[in-house]
Amino acid sequence: MHTPASKVSGYVVLMIVQIVFLVLFWLFVRYDKSALPARLDNEDAGSANEHVSKYPQFQDIQVMIFIGFGFLMTFLRKYGYSATGYTLFLAALVVQWAVLMKGFLHMEGGKISLSLESIIDADIAAAVPLISMGALLGRTTPIQLLCMSIIEVALFAANEYLALNILSICDCGGSITVHAFGAYFGLAVAMMLRPSSDQNEAGKHEGPNYTSDIFAMIGTTFLWVYWPSFNSVLAAGNGGERAILNTFLSLAAATVTSFVVSALVSHENKLDMVHVQNSTLAGGVAVGTVCNLLLGAHGAVLIGIIAGTVSVLGYRYLTPWLTSNLRLHDTCGVHNLHGMPALISAIASAIYASLVTMDNYQSELQDIFPAMVGNNGTTTKIMGGLGRNASSQAGYQLFGIALTLIIAIGGGILTGAALKYASFRNLQKDEQHQDEQYWEVPALEPKEE
Amino acid sequence: MHTPASKVSGYVVLMIVQIVFLVLFWLFVRYDKSALPARLDNEDAGSANEHVSKYPQFQDIQVMIFIGFGFLMTFLRKYGYSATGYTLFLAALVVQWAVLMKGFLHMEGGKISLSLESIIDADIAAAVPLISMGALLGRTTPIQLLCMSIIEVALFAANEYLALNILSICDCGGSITVHAFGAYFGLAVAMMLRPSSDQNEAGKHEGPNYTSDIFAMIGTTFLWVYWPSFNSVLAAGNGGERAILNTFLSLAAATVTSFVVSALVSHENKLDMVHVQNSTLAGGVAVGTVCNLLLGAHGAVLIGIIAGTVSVLGYRYLTPWLTSNLRLHDTCGVHNLHGMPALISAIASAIYASLVTMDNYQSELQDIFPAMVGNNGTTTKIMGGLGRNASSQAGYQLFGIALTLIIAIGGGILTGAALKYASFRNLQKDEQHQDEQYWEVPALEPKEE
Amino acid sequence: MHTPASKVSGYVVLMIVQIVFLVLFWLFVRYDKSALPARLDNEDAGSANEHVSKYPQFQDIQVMIFIGFGFLMTFLRKYGYSATGYTLFLAALVVQWAVLMKGFLHMEGGKISLSLESIIDADIAAAVPLISMGALLGRTTPIQLLCMSIIEVALFAANEYLALNILSICDCGGSITVHAFGAYFGLAVAMMLRPSSDQNEAGKHEGPNYTSDIFAMIGTTFLWVYWPSFNSVLAAGNGGERAILNTFLSLAAATVTSFVVSALVSHENKLDMVHVQNSTLAGGVAVGTVCNLLLGAHGAVLIGIIAGTVSVLGYRYLTPWLTSNLRLHDTCGVHNLHGMPALISAIASAIYASLVTMDNYQSELQDIFPAMVGNNGTTTKIMGGLGRNASSQAGYQLFGIALTLIIAIGGGILTGAALKYASFRNLQKDEQHQDEQYWEVPALEPKEE
Repeated sequence: MHTPASKVSGYVVLMIVQIVFLVLFWLFVRYDKSALPARLDNEDAGSANEHVSKYPQFQDIQVMIFIGFGFLMTFLRKYGYSATGYTLFLAALVVQWAVLMKGFLHMEGGKISLSLESIIDADIAAAVPLISMGALLGRTTPIQLLCMSIIEVALFAANEYLALNILSICDCGGSITVHAFGAYFGLAVAMMLRPSSDQNEAGKHEGPNYTSDIFAMIGTTFLWVYWPSFNSVLAAGNGGERAILNTFLSLAAATVTSFVVSALVSHENKLDMVHVQNSTLAGGVAVGTVCNLLLGAHGAVLIGIIAGTVSVLGYRYLTPWLTSNLRLHDTCGVHNLHGMPALISAIASAIYASLVTMDNYQSELQDIFPAMVGNNGTTTKIMGGLGRNASSQAGYQLFGIALTLIIAIGGGILTGAALKYASFRNLQKDEQHQDEQYWEVPALEPKEE
Repeated sequence: MHTPASKVSGYVVLMIVQIVFLVLFWLFVRYDKSALPARLDNEDAGSANEHVSKYPQFQDIQVMIFIGFGFLMTFLRKYGYSATGYTLFLAALVVQWAVLMKGFLHMEGGKISLSLESIIDADIAAAVPLISMGALLGRTTPIQLLCMSIIEVALFAANEYLALNILSICDCGGSITVHAFGAYFGLAVAMMLRPSSDQNEAGKHEGPNYTSDIFAMIGTTFLWVYWPSFNSVLAAGNGGERAILNTFLSLAAATVTSFVVSALVSHENKLDMVHVQNSTLAGGVAVGTVCNLLLGAHGAVLIGIIAGTVSVLGYRYLTPWLTSNLRLHDTCGVHNLHGMPALISAIASAIYASLVTMDNYQSELQDIFPAMVGNNGTTTKIMGGLGRNASSQAGYQLFGIALTLIIAIGGGILTGAALKYASFRNLQKDEQHQDEQYWEVPALEPKEE
Repeated sequence: MHTPASKVSGYVVLMIVQIVFLVLFWLFVRYDKSALPARLDNEDAGSANEHVSKYPQFQDIQVMIFIGFGFLMTFLRKYGYSATGYTLFLAALVVQWAVLMKGFLHMEGGKISLSLESIIDADIAAAVPLISMGALLGRTTPIQLLCMSIIEVALFAANEYLALNILSICDCGGSITVHAFGAYFGLAVAMMLRPSSDQNEAGKHEGPNYTSDIFAMIGTTFLWVYWPSFNSVLAAGNGGERAILNTFLSLAAATVTSFVVSALVSHENKLDMVHVQNSTLAGGVAVGTVCNLLLGAHGAVLIGIIAGTVSVLGYRYLTPWLTSNLRLHDTCGVHNLHGMPALISAIASAIYASLVTMDNYQSELQDIFPAMVGNNGTTTKIMGGLGRNASSQAGYQLFGIALTLIIAIGGGILTGAALKYASFRNLQKDEQHQDEQYWEVPALEPKEE
C-alpha cells in the first residue's frame, strides 16, 4: 500500500544522512595544502596553478555524470523527470559520501585532505551507483535507490582499495573497479527484486517515444565526446595522451561496428536506437582498463570492434534471454554497455600485462605497474627478484576482476535483499517506469484554448 | 494595438545600437598586449600561453550563459523559441555592451584594452539581465527586454565598480554584484509592469508540459556542473581551488536538501520539478560571495543546506504570497534562486570577514581583502592603523549589499516605468507566455498523412 | 525498389571499410614521441603536459562535431534519429579515415605519427562531410552518405595540403578549406541528385515541429559557444587569443544582426527559427580565415554584421530561388551558413593580407604567412626579394579559394554522379526526410491506458 507516511520517513532519513555528512565534514575534512593560502614566507608561492591542471577534465567528467547518465536514461517515455532528477539527487548525495569514504581509507593524522583530486574521485565514484541505477531503472522508489547507493559506494571504495592498493592491478579508466562493479552489483540487486513469474512481462510504460529517444541521444553523445577525459584523468605522464588517443579510436571503431551490426541483426535491417544509444559507448568501457598501455592504434581499434559487436549482440539476444529465463530485467541493458565490455577490458589487461617489458614502459612502469618495480624502489631490479614479473601481473589482473565480481555480486545480493524485505515500500507492477508516483506531472497534452 | 510598425521601429533601433557599438569599438578598443604579436626583439616571446590559462573556465561560463540560462527558461510549454532565442539575442548584444561599459571604467590612455579577461567579464555581465529576464519571462516584448538590458548592464557596471573598487568588498563569485543585482532589478521592473488587480490570475499559457520540463533540465544540469567555473574564474592563487571545492560541496548539499524539502512540503509529498530545476542551484549562489574564503568543507555544506531549504520554501510559500498580495509576478522565481540565496551569501560574507586574520589568509589577504592591507603596501601593518580591521570589513560587506539593493531596485523602478510608459508596446494578458506574437510557429501537431 | 538486400550489402561494405582501417592502423600508425613513455635516462621526463595543452579545445571541438552538428540537424520533425545517429556514425568513420589520409600526406620514415594533434585534425576533417550532409539532409540513404564522406575527406585532405602547404595561404579557422569545401561539395552532390522537374515541390515531411526546433537550438547554441575553440585551436602564439576574441565578437555581432534582419524581412515581422538556428553562426564562419589577423574589435564586428545580413537574406531570397529555378535543394541552407560566409572570409583574407607589414606582425609573421618570410629563413629579408610581398599574398588567398571551389565542385559532381548511377539505392520522394526507412521507430503517440 502506498502511504505518504512511507515517503515522508524515507525523505527524513535522507535529510538525516545529509546532516550526518555535515558533521563528518566538520570533524574530519580539511583543505589540502594546495588549496590553502601560500605562507607569506614561502618563496614559491606562485606555483599554485599546477594543482588544478586537471580541472578541465574534471568538468568533462561532471558533464558525463550529470548530463551523460541523466539524459541517457530519459529514453523511457514517462520517466524523464526521474531519469534526470534522480541522477542529480543520487550523484549529489554520493559525491559527498565518496569524499568521506575514500578519505577514510587514506587519512593522514586522523584528517581527510580535500583537494581537486578528492572531487574527481567523488565524481568517478558517482558513476558506480548510476550504472546500477540503469539496470533497475523504473523499478525502484527513489528512497530505495538512494539507500542502495550509500551501501554500494562504501563497498566500491573498499573493493577499489583492495584492487589498486593491495593487489596493485592497473585499471586506469576504471573498467574493472567502476564499470564491472556497478553493472554486476546492479544486476545482483535486480535479481533479488525480480518479479514473480506471473508478472514477468514488460511493464506497460517500459518503452520510448520519438521525443524521449532524442533526449537520450543528448546523454549518449556527451558520454561519447568526453569519455577520453574519464579514462585519462588518472593517468600519469605521457600515459595521459595515450589514454586519450586509445579511447578516442576505440569509441570510433565501436560506433561504426555498432551501427553495422545493429542493422545486420535487427528486424528488416533497420537501425535500433537502443544499440545506437548504448553500444556505441562500449568501446570506451572495453578500452578503459588498458587505455594507458601501449596498445597501438590498431589495438585500440580492435578492442572497439570487439566491444561494439559483443554489445549489440548482447542487446539483441542475451538480454531478452535473461529476462525470459531468469526474470532478470535490465532496463538500460547495463550488462551490454558496462558489464561485458568491462570483462573484455579485464581480459585485455591480462594479455597486455603479460607483454610488459622494462624496455617498453621505461619511466612509466613505476606509475602503471608499481608492483613490477622492485621493493627497494630501484628500477634496476625490474623483472628481477623483488618485483612481480609480467605473467604474474597478468594473473593479478584476472584476480582483480574475479574479486570485483565476487564483492559486487555478493554485495548486490545482500543489498537487494535489504531493499526487498526491510521496511522499504516496493513499487507495484503498474507503478513502474512512470514518474507519477513520485512527481507532480502536468497533463500530457495541455488543452488548447 | 499590435502594429507591425511598432516592431519594425524597435528592431531598427536595435540595429542602430549595433552600429553604434561598431563605431565605439573602432574609436576606443585595442587588443591588449597579450593578444598582440610578440616583438621580434623580445626574448621572452614564448610565454604567451599563460594569458589564456582561464580559457577552459571561460568556455564553461559560455555554456552556462547561453545553454544554461537559455534552456532553464524553456520550461514554459509555449515559450521555448523565446527562451532560447532571446537568451542568444540578449547575451550577444550585452556582451558587446559590457566590453565597452566595463572598459570605459578602466581606460588607460583613452583606450579600452581587449583581452580574454574582457570577454570573461562580459559573459558574467550577461548573466545579470538574464536573471532579470527570468523574473519577467513571457510578459515583455523582445524590444522591451533588450532595451532593459542595455540600461541594466550600465548600472550593473557602475555598481560593481563602486562595490569592488571603491568599497573594496569581497565578492568572488558575484552573488552580490551579479545575482542580487539581477534579481532585485528584475523584480523592481516586474513590480512596475504588474497587472491591474483584475488581471492578476496566472496566464493561461503559463505552465510547463512534460517535454518542456525536460528541456529545462538541460539548463539546470549545465548550470550545476559548470557553476564551480563561474565562482572560481576570478579567484587568485590557491583561492581558485577553494572556490571550486566550496562551490561543488555547497551545490551538492543544496541539491539533496532541495529534493527532501520539496517532497516534504509538496502536495501528496511528490517532488516538484520547479524546485528540482531551480533550488538545486541555490547552493551555487549562496556560496558565491564567500567561495574563496576559508569556509571548510562543513561551512560550504552548511551554506548549501540553508540555501536549498530557503529556496524551496520560497517557491512553495513566498512566491504565491507575493503574487496574490503584491501582484508581483516572478515567472522563474528568481527571488528564490538568485535573490534570497544572494542575501544569504552577503550575510555569510560579513560573518566570515569578521573572522579574518593575517595568520589564516597569509599571502592571499592582499588579493581577497585588499583594504585590510595597509596603505603603504606592507603586510606588516595588517590589522594595524592603515588597513581595515576585520569587523570593519564585515560592515563594508553589509554596506555593499545594501548599496547594491538600492541601486538595483531604484534602477529597476525607473527602467520599469520607462518600459511601461514610454512608447513601447506592452503585451496584453492573453499574448503572454507564448511565442506566437513574435515568432513564426509551426502547427503544434503537424498532420500525419 | 527497396530490398533489404541492398541495405545488407551496403552495411557489409562499411564493415569491410572498418576492417581495412584496422589493417592500415596496424601497418602505418605509431604513437608520436609525445605519447610514448619518457626514457629512463631522459632528464626532462617531467615536461609531458605541454603536448596536451590543447586538450580542452579539442574537447570543445568534439562537442561541436557530435552535439553541435548532430542536434542542429534535428530540426526536421521526423528525422531526429537520423540527424543525431548519422552524425555519430559518419563522424566515427571519418575521424579514423582522416587520421590515415592526413597522416599519409605527412609521413616520416613510412610511418604516421599519432598524437593529440592527429585527432584534433581528424575532428576538423569530420566537419567537412557533416556540412555537406546538411545540404543533402533527408535525401540520401546512410550508405550513400557514408560513401560520399569517404571520398570527400580524401579530396579535402588533398585540397587542404595544396592550399596550406603548397600555396601557403592563411586559413586559421578553416573557412576556405573546411567550410567552403564542405558547402560547395555538398551543393554539387545535391545538384547531381536533384529531383526531376515534376518532383520539385518540398517533401511532405520536410519541416520542423515545435519540439524539433528546440532540439535544434541545442546544436546552435553549442556551436555558438565553442566556435572560438574551433577557430583558435591551430593558431600559434598570441594569435590564439586574437582568434578567440575576434570570433567571439563576430559571432555576437552576427547574432544581433540576424535577429534584426530576420524580423525585418520575415512575414508579419516575426522572427524565423531557421535564421536564428543558422545565421547567428555565420559570424563564426565569416571570421574564420582571418580570425588570427589584426582585425581589431571593429573589424571582427563589421565582418559579423555583414555575415549575419548576407546569411539571413540568403535564406529568405536565394535558397527559394535556387530551389525553384535550379531544383537545387539545400535542406539546412548550408550555402547561407557555410558557403557565402566562407566566401566573405576568403575576400576578407585577401584584403587583410594586402595590408600586412613586418612591423605589425613581428614575430608571428613566420607562423601566419610563412611565404612572406625569406627563403633563407631570416626575417630581415621580409618584404624583400625572397619572400612574397603583401599584394602577392592577397592574390594567393584568392587563388586558394578559387582552387578550393574548383576541387569541391568538381569532386562533388563526380561523387554525386557515382551516388546516383552506381548501384546505390536512391530514396523515393515520399521516403525522404523521415527516419522510418532506416530506423525502428516507435508509434508517434503511444496509447495511454
